[in-house]
Amino acid sequence: MSFPTPLTGVVPPVCTPLTPEREVDVSSLMRLVDHLVNGGVDALFVLGSSSEAAYLTDRQRRLVVETVVSQVAGRLPVLAGAIDMTTPRVLDHVAYVTEAGADAVVVTAPFYTRTHPAEIARHYRLIADRSPVPVIAYDIPVAVHTRLPPELVLELAADRALAGLKDSSGDLAGFRAVVSGARTRPGLAGFSVLTGSELVVDSALALGAHGAVPGLANVDPEGYVRLYRLCRAGDWDAARAEQERLCALYGMVGVGDPARMGGGSSSLGAFKAALHLRGVIACPVTAEPQVPLSDAETEHVGKFLAAAGLL
Amino acid sequence: MSFPTPLTGVVPPVCTPLTPEREVDVSSLMRLVDHLVNGGVDALFVLGSSSEAAYLTDRQRRLVVETVVSQVAGRLPVLAGAIDMTTPRVLDHVAYVTEAGADAVVVTAPFYTRTHPAEIARHYRLIADRSPVPVIAYDIPVAVHTRLPPELVLELAADRALAGLKDSSGDLAGFRAVVSGARTRPGLAGFSVLTGSELVVDSALALGAHGAVPGLANVDPEGYVRLYRLCRAGDWDAARAEQERLCALYGMVGVGDPARMGGGSSSLGAFKAALHLRGVIACPVTAEPQVPLSDAETEHVGKFLAAAGLL
Amino acid sequence: MSFPTPLTGVVPPVCTPLTPEREVDVSSLMRLVDHLVNGGVDALFVLGSSSEAAYLTDRQRRLVVETVVSQVAGRLPVLAGAIDMTTPRVLDHVAYVTEAGADAVVVTAPFYTRTHPAEIARHYRLIADRSPVPVIAYDIPVAVHTRLPPELVLELAADRALAGLKDSSGDLAGFRAVVSGARTRPGLAGFSVLTGSELVVDSALALGAHGAVPGLANVDPEGYVRLYRLCRAGDWDAARAEQERLCALYGMVGVGDPARMGGGSSSLGAFKAALHLRGVIACPVTAEPQVPLSDAETEHVGKFLAAAGLL
Amino acid sequence: MSFPTPLTGVVPPVCTPLTPEREVDVSSLMRLVDHLVNGGVDALFVLGSSSEAAYLTDRQRRLVVETVVSQVAGRLPVLAGAIDMTTPRVLDHVAYVTEAGADAVVVTAPFYTRTHPAEIARHYRLIADRSPVPVIAYDIPVAVHTRLPPELVLELAADRALAGLKDSSGDLAGFRAVVSGARTRPGLAGFSVLTGSELVVDSALALGAHGAVPGLANVDPEGYVRLYRLCRAGDWDAARAEQERLCALYGMVGVGDPARMGGGSSSLGAFKAALHLRGVIACPVTAEPQVPLSDAETEHVGKFLAAAGLL
Repeated sequence: MSFPTPLTGVVPPVCTPLTPEREVDVSSLMRLVDHLVNGGVDALFVLGSSSEAAYLTDRQRRLVVETVVSQVAGRLPVLAGAIDMTTPRVLDHVAYVTEAGADAVVVTAPFYTRTHPAEIARHYRLIADRSPVPVIAYDIPVAVHTRLPPELVLELAADRALAGLKDSSGDLAGFRAVVSGARTRPGLAGFSVLTGSELVVDSALALGAHGAVPGLANVDPEGYVRLYRLCRAGDWDAARAEQERLCALYGMVGVGDPARMGGGSSSLGAFKAALHLRGVIACPVTAEPQVPLSDAETEHVGKFLAAAGLL
Repeated sequence: MSFPTPLTGVVPPVCTPLTPEREVDVSSLMRLVDHLVNGGVDALFVLGSSSEAAYLTDRQRRLVVETVVSQVAGRLPVLAGAIDMTTPRVLDHVAYVTEAGADAVVVTAPFYTRTHPAEIARHYRLIADRSPVPVIAYDIPVAVHTRLPPELVLELAADRALAGLKDSSGDLAGFRAVVSGARTRPGLAGFSVLTGSELVVDSALALGAHGAVPGLANVDPEGYVRLYRLCRAGDWDAARAEQERLCALYGMVGVGDPARMGGGSSSLGAFKAALHLRGVIACPVTAEPQVPLSDAETEHVGKFLAAAGLL
Repeated sequence: MSFPTPLTGVVPPVCTPLTPEREVDVSSLMRLVDHLVNGGVDALFVLGSSSEAAYLTDRQRRLVVETVVSQVAGRLPVLAGAIDMTTPRVLDHVAYVTEAGADAVVVTAPFYTRTHPAEIARHYRLIADRSPVPVIAYDIPVAVHTRLPPELVLELAADRALAGLKDSSGDLAGFRAVVSGARTRPGLAGFSVLTGSELVVDSALALGAHGAVPGLANVDPEGYVRLYRLCRAGDWDAARAEQERLCALYGMVGVGDPARMGGGSSSLGAFKAALHLRGVIACPVTAEPQVPLSDAETEHVGKFLAAAGLL
Repeated sequence: MSFPTPLTGVVPPVCTPLTPEREVDVSSLMRLVDHLVNGGVDALFVLGSSSEAAYLTDRQRRLVVETVVSQVAGRLPVLAGAIDMTTPRVLDHVAYVTEAGADAVVVTAPFYTRTHPAEIARHYRLIADRSPVPVIAYDIPVAVHTRLPPELVLELAADRALAGLKDSSGDLAGFRAVVSGARTRPGLAGFSVLTGSELVVDSALALGAHGAVPGLANVDPEGYVRLYRLCRAGDWDAARAEQERLCALYGMVGVGDPARMGGGSSSLGAFKAALHLRGVIACPVTAEPQVPLSDAETEHVGKFLAAAGLL
């Protein structure tokens, strides 16, 4: 389907359910897609960080896009991450995810290599030149260890190299610079500015963001859809209450013992445990080399769900 | 060929010559291999950071290993990087580089994702289990943004999960902890400890390293071979003089204007310009999105070569 | 005067005007205090980062507090930074700033030394024990290179070791955790949660912050007072417009040439140039070793003022 | 006494013994000075990081310099740290430590504030202009979070703004650039290049350093003096063995439980525990807010001493 200009609303970064053998669990993924679509979300983002894209082989990534595109069946736009270190490798991912039907690609700055604003600009221009679908910049310094300067994003937007921004920088002031620039500069009316900061979605929408990409929306899509609608209706008090309920639910990402595992293992493990406990996916396993949650930690996830009325 | 226990000597991380269209320039790569083998080096390391592995597609990576293995024709061991974000993706690279004939694989800690010592250990153990050849750990915090703790390296070595370490941390004290541990702990006699710090190879060898992986050895393999032999002979004054000559030559990595490009573009651009000026490779182009050196910057590289007696 | 529980409203971090010889310009400082008080602000914060506290000698710091306390003459509370590396040194500053009449002290985590959450907690507890006035934690990772974990702040608040938080972390999600905790946990009703993020004051107030500490309020106190009142009135659209006007004005911090000076020289230089151009202070000089703005850069500051209707 | 050009040999950063009430323990400090002088060291460095300078009040700092200068009584040069955030504050420390008799001052780049190479240069030039004694640059990125670029150090040396460098960057390649530059550039013959990397003193001396500033020399001055002499005699095998003995002894810095304290508490706690166990100082207490070692951790320190033949 054609990509909205701008894209608005709730766009969950879809988790990738795995079998105990750590293959893509296609039927669980199909159920998860329905769970999200039925929850009222506006688009789906596959192969992002919450999708464990960094842990999936190319074969698995392609299978994920094919499965989701087919299950969505045109009901919503599907964005796909093309996450890799540099331009040539990203272009390989762009080729197969668009072949598999993705409506837009989501691309980070180069990583692993040392980089530079001039090289980041060159990277996005080259990818935009060769991508058959719109390119969304993915600002995720915790993963790539560089920031996308707001001014650079706006410049690439003005040149039609970028169709949107998915901001996971955690820096709301920088995000605001892009939102304001996109609103006030000529020719940027269709540029999509999306926040990945799931704990301040109300703040991001209040200052003019078009939508949100919250990992926690896998677990509670209805909650984020409600939050989005309250914000759009200008009911900021109710929005704040809903956001705070979601913040409390988000506490689940801290269940994993930091002596035994990293923050990624804990948070992705918690999301998948929650999806499993809610009956959406068959198995809560995460990809290697992540450390699995213990039984007690999984039980703790259940308590967060219960407190939020989701069990 | 079988992998030496330990691997000693000079092991250049082989640059990857590209055509103007940015395809692997196979005949230049064959000439580069001969240039290095004739220079007296002890092994070759393909698909490392100096090889622009992060910029090569899987197809290109495979072609590099095949070309180098075939050109070396068993004269020397060939180590191949299997550089990717996490265990499943690294295993895919391990499969094709070993199929193509690599004698060992070189693997970093997970990157892009947040990680943890327990996850790093799990990563290496899983890869060692499934790799048909020995696994060398690649400690390169500038790229992956985590350190490999020396104690963890020694523990994985004792468990036969690691056959060696290629240290590009720049932290000689941490490196020394691994060198000393490998010498004094039982069962670690065959473990290879190699430095990637090309400016202090004499220091690293003096404290017991087995060898070095200097990017600059692409440009001046004879220099590093001479340096290695002087160190082994205990002629530390002459070794220091040779190392200082190489440090001066290394100054070429700074030719690129930092307002216009990053440090990687400058240093890889300089190595390739030098190989081109010395007649080894046909074209100095680097992979996208790196910024090319200007003519003046390339001329500056020539001056470094001339000062070192290499032109 | 007694410290409000909680402190609310606009609390400018007062710039420290200097003479050309880089002594405290007492009469300019008195004029600046009046400019701020007349602008309608709710309290003053001296010896913070915007006050160049890090650049002032102890003698100068004491003179600043004495001057401001005397000029304010009990009209508003005066908070004073006690910025130093560790507990014993901070306690020396606490002694003289409270002797000089400060109503509260503002204290960062230890810096220069390596630290640890347990040591940060110990630091604040010791200072609270010995301070005659309330202690406000100052979370400023860009300066001290550690974060104050929200949970630690709430724990110290519950134990009465902290009376408030001044958050300059730029992390609105973490800030929200403190705001929500302070609202919902028993006994924390008087704890003051203040944002130092001058570009998202509307967002911070919307999610429940008590007030803001915006450096730019030196230049435009009326603007921030207006913004605060619009937020309190729930007129979020007008608040957003006012905040965006202030964001545009804030652009002045980028006037300094990054090839010639750091970001601190540029932003403090711009604030002081603006105060000079507006006729509030006699001389725009900043403390050593900051690099002064050029005439062209100062002119550029004037354009920002003109665009904001402040000249 | 006049400052040597260059300063050579072993220059311990003298620990600051404290009483249980955390006042400077003057008689223990005098014993420590004698312990070091009798151990054969070449100069003393007070008020550095190992001296807990960051934790001492100005009054205590002055007392330390007075005590050490008086106890040394001209037998050796005494260097004193003037550790503070910016130029004006550093100049205050320079005034009293030189009044108290320091033969040189040791100064870091600005910290807490954001900085820039141009500001660092300005900082050192201003301090050199106003200091009655030579200024040594202290490169300690772990504390100040910036590096001193080797080229900048050499430029300031050529302009007589710096008399030496104390390098605690851990980056031996960068250190080598200063050592080589100081040896080969005109007019730099008297510039002192000292390493603070106590685990690779042999490497630093081999590549041309003039001396070392090892924290562990508090505990075992004879060991470092022996190491220095072996290096100067060109007996590199014996030097390496001595250095490795000292590396093993250094293991004591890891005795503190990282769940309970930071690395600084552990390492300074271990050095002081060792000095106490060896009978040099009366009390092993460290300054606030450092966490003290437990009895078991102190016992562990004793085992390191015993293994090194120091108990």
